Amino acid sequence: MRNFTFQNQTKIIFGKGQIQKTGCEVASFGKKVLMVYGKGSIKRNGIYDQVVASLNAERLTIVEFPGVKSNPVLSHTRKGIDLAKREGVDVVLAVGGGSVIDSAKTIAAGAKTEDDVWDYFSQGKTIQDALPILTVVTVSASASEMNSAAVITKEEGARKFSIRSPFIQPKTSILDPETLFTLSHEYSAYSAVDAITHMLEGYFNNKEPNSPLQDRLVEGLIKTIMESTETILREPVNYDARANMMWAATLAFNGLTTAGMGKVSLPAHMIEHSLSALYDIAHGAGLSIVLPGWMMYAIEKNPARFARLSLEIFGITDNDNFKAGVEGITRLKEWFSSIGSPVSLREAAIPEKDIDKIAQNAYVLAEAWGLTDYSETVITDILRRCD
Amino acid sequence: MRNFTFQNQTKIIFGKGQIQKTGCEVASFGKKVLMVYGKGSIKRNGIYDQVVASLNAERLTIVEFPGVKSNPVLSHTRKGIDLAKREGVDVVLAVGGGSVIDSAKTIAAGAKTEDDVWDYFSQGKTIQDALPILTVVTVSASASEMNSAAVITKEEGARKFSIRSPFIQPKTSILDPETLFTLSHEYSAYSAVDAITHMLEGYFNNKEPNSPLQDRLVEGLIKTIMESTETILREPVNYDARANMMWAATLAFNGLTTAGMGKVSLPAHMIEHSLSALYDIAHGAGLSIVLPGWMMYAIEKNPARFARLSLEIFGITDNDNFKAGVEGITRLKEWFSSIGSPVSLREAAIPEKDIDKIAQNAYVLAEAWGLTDYSETVITDILRRCD
Repeated sequence: MRNFTFQNQTKIIFGKGQIQKTGCEVASFGKKVLMVYGKGSIKRNGIYDQVVASLNAERLTIVEFPGVKSNPVLSHTRKGIDLAKREGVDVVLAVGGGSVIDSAKTIAAGAKTEDDVWDYFSQGKTIQDALPILTVVTVSASASEMNSAAVITKEEGARKFSIRSPFIQPKTSILDPETLFTLSHEYSAYSAVDAITHMLEGYFNNKEPNSPLQDRLVEGLIKTIMESTETILREPVNYDARANMMWAATLAFNGLTTAGMGKVSLPAHMIEHSLSALYDIAHGAGLSIVLPGWMMYAIEKNPARFARLSLEIFGITDNDNFKAGVEGITRLKEWFSSIGSPVSLREAAIPEKDIDKIAQNAYVLAEAWGLTDYSETVITDILRRCD
Repeated sequence: MRNFTFQNQTKIIFGKGQIQKTGCEVASFGKKVLMVYGKGSIKRNGIYDQVVASLNAERLTIVEFPGVKSNPVLSHTRKGIDLAKREGVDVVLAVGGGSVIDSAKTIAAGAKTEDDVWDYFSQGKTIQDALPILTVVTVSASASEMNSAAVITKEEGARKFSIRSPFIQPKTSILDPETLFTLSHEYSAYSAVDAITHMLEGYFNNKEPNSPLQDRLVEGLIKTIMESTETILREPVNYDARANMMWAATLAFNGLTTAGMGKVSLPAHMIEHSLSALYDIAHGAGLSIVLPGWMMYAIEKNPARFARLSLEIFGITDNDNFKAGVEGITRLKEWFSSIGSPVSLREAAIPEKDIDKIAQNAYVLAEAWGLTDYSETVITDILRRCD
C-alpha cells in the first residue's frame, strides 16, 4: 500500500423523497442560490418542481442558470460566472449529472476570483476559493457529486481539460434513485461504461503491485454496476437496481478505490476527451470505444493483471494470462455492445482518416497530464485498435 | 437500498513515516494538547518518542494522561476529564487502539460540559459539544479512528455502554502500519476477530433484503482481513499485510459497509460486552467466543444469508442452505481458533454456572439498545451454544 491522505467531506443524503431536503441544506450556506441545470429535462420529469418547491419553502432567492450541455463548454460557464458575480449569489446548486455539476464547480470557483477561470484548467494555477456547491444528482456516472474534480471543454482548439481542488468538493449531494427513472436507455448504458472505466483506469494504471483490498472493492463495484445496469435496461423504474447503480457509481470515483494505490493515470479518459471535444460524442460512448482498444494495447505490459480481471468478473480461467486477459477484454467489449454503447470509431461515424488529428489533440492532454508513455505514435496505435 | 445519510469527515493520513505529521495536524486545532495513551507499550516501541518529537516541533504544550486499560473504565476517564478542565487543554490526542481512542472521545465530550459524562452513555442525553480529537492508531480493530462511537465500562454494576455523536468523530487520524509491527500475536488475532465481527453484525442484522453492493464490500474486506492476518501471524513485520489489515479494519466500521442497510443491530457485541465487563477478557477474544454461538442461533431465521457467506468466503456449495451455513460457521470458528483466539467460554475459564449472571448483565444492554428479540432466555440459549 502506498502512503495516502483520504478525506471526503461531502454529506450524501440518499434515497426516495430526499429532494425535499434540498432547501434546508442550501439554506445552511446562504440565502441566494444560483441553480445550474441543463437543457430542461428536469422540467419534463418533475425534478425541477421538487427542487424549486424545496428552495421556496426556505424562502431562498433563486437565480436560474440553465442550458448546460453534455461535454460542458467554457463559454457557457463564463456566462454563469458573470451571472453569479452580478447577482452576488451565496451558493451554487447543481441539478443534473456530471456536466451540470462540473459546470457548477467551475462557476463556483470563477465567481470568487478575478483570474480567468480557464487558467486553473490550463496553466496549473491553483484554485484559492469557491462558493459552496451542493448537488441534486439526476445522472449517476461521473461521481462528481462526491469528488473534487471538474472537466470543461474550451471550444477554441477543442481542449477538454480538468481541474481538482478541495474548494470545489460539494458540501452536500442529494441522491434520489427515482430521479433516474426517466434516464434514457442510452444514457443509462453510458453511465455504466463511465463508472466502470473510472475504476479500470485505477485498476490498471497505478503504482502499487500489492492491492488486494482495492482490487476487491473495484471488482465488487463492477459486478454490481453490470448486474444493476442489465436490470435497469429491462426495467427502467426498478428502484433497487437504480439505487445500487447510483451508490456504486459514486463510490467508483470518490477516492475510495484508489486510496493507497499511488498516483493513478487515466489514459483512456485522456484519449476519450479528444473524441468528445472534437465530435461532441457522449463521454460514456467515447469510453466504450476507447477502453477496449486501450486494454488491447496495455495487456502486453501486465497480462497477469488482465487475467485477474477476467477471472473475477467473467469467471474466465486459462493458464495463459495473455489469452485469459484477451478473452476478458473481448467479453467486456461485447457487454458494452450488448447494453447499446458503441465499441468502434466506425459505429460513432468517426472516419479512420481522422485518427492522426485525434492523436494530435490527445497528445496535448498527455503532455498536460504528464503521461510521458503516450506519444502521438502510441496514441495512434491505440486508436487503430478501437475498431 | 434504504434511505441513508453518509458523511465521514475524518482526514486519514496513512503510511510509513506519517507520525511526524501529528504535530502539524494537532496545531491546527490548538496549542495545548491532552495526550491520552495506555499502559506504556508506546514508550517501549518508540511511538511515544515519535509523537512527542512531532508535537514539540510545533511547540505545543503537552499534558500527558496515560494509563488507559483494555476495556477502558469510566473512573479513569473521569480523571482525564478533570485534568483536561484543570489544564484548559484545546485538543485531545489519542495514541493507541480503540480503548485509548474511546477514552479520549469520552474525555473530549466530558471536558466541554458540567453534565456527568455517564449520562450520555446511560440516559440517552445527547452530546452537545466536545474538544477536537485526533488519533495516532497503534491497534487496528475498532475503527474508532474513523467513526463517531465510543464504548466505556462503568465498574459499578459492570456496565459496558456506548455513545455515538458527530462531535466525537476524530478530525484527523494517522495510520502508520509500522506501529503494528510490535503488536502481539494474540492482539493481532483479536483485531481480526473484532473487525470481522463488526461487518458480520451488519451483514446479518440489517433491514435490507437486497444489498449486493454492501455484501460485496463486506466479503472483500473479510477476505482481505483473513489473508492479511494469516500473513501477519507468520511475519509480524510484513508491511503490506499490516497495511492491508489497518485500512480494512478502518473501512470495516466507518459507516461504509452499512450505508443503505437500515438500522443495524449488534447482538454479538451486546453479549460480548457482558463478558468483557464481568471478566475483563479482551474484546476480540470475547467476540470469537460469542459470534459463532450467536450465528448458530441466528441461522435458523435466515439460512440463505448464511449460505451466501459460506460460499463467498469459504467456497462452500451445498443445495441445502442450512447445511452450507452451518459448515461456514464451523469453518469460521476453526479459523478463529487457528489464529489463537478462544472459541468457547471454557477456553476463557468462564464457568457454565455463570451463564445466567452473564445473561442478566447482557439483558440490561439489550433493553438499552432496544434489541427486543433478546430476552434473558434467548441470551442464555445463545451463551449455551458458545462452547
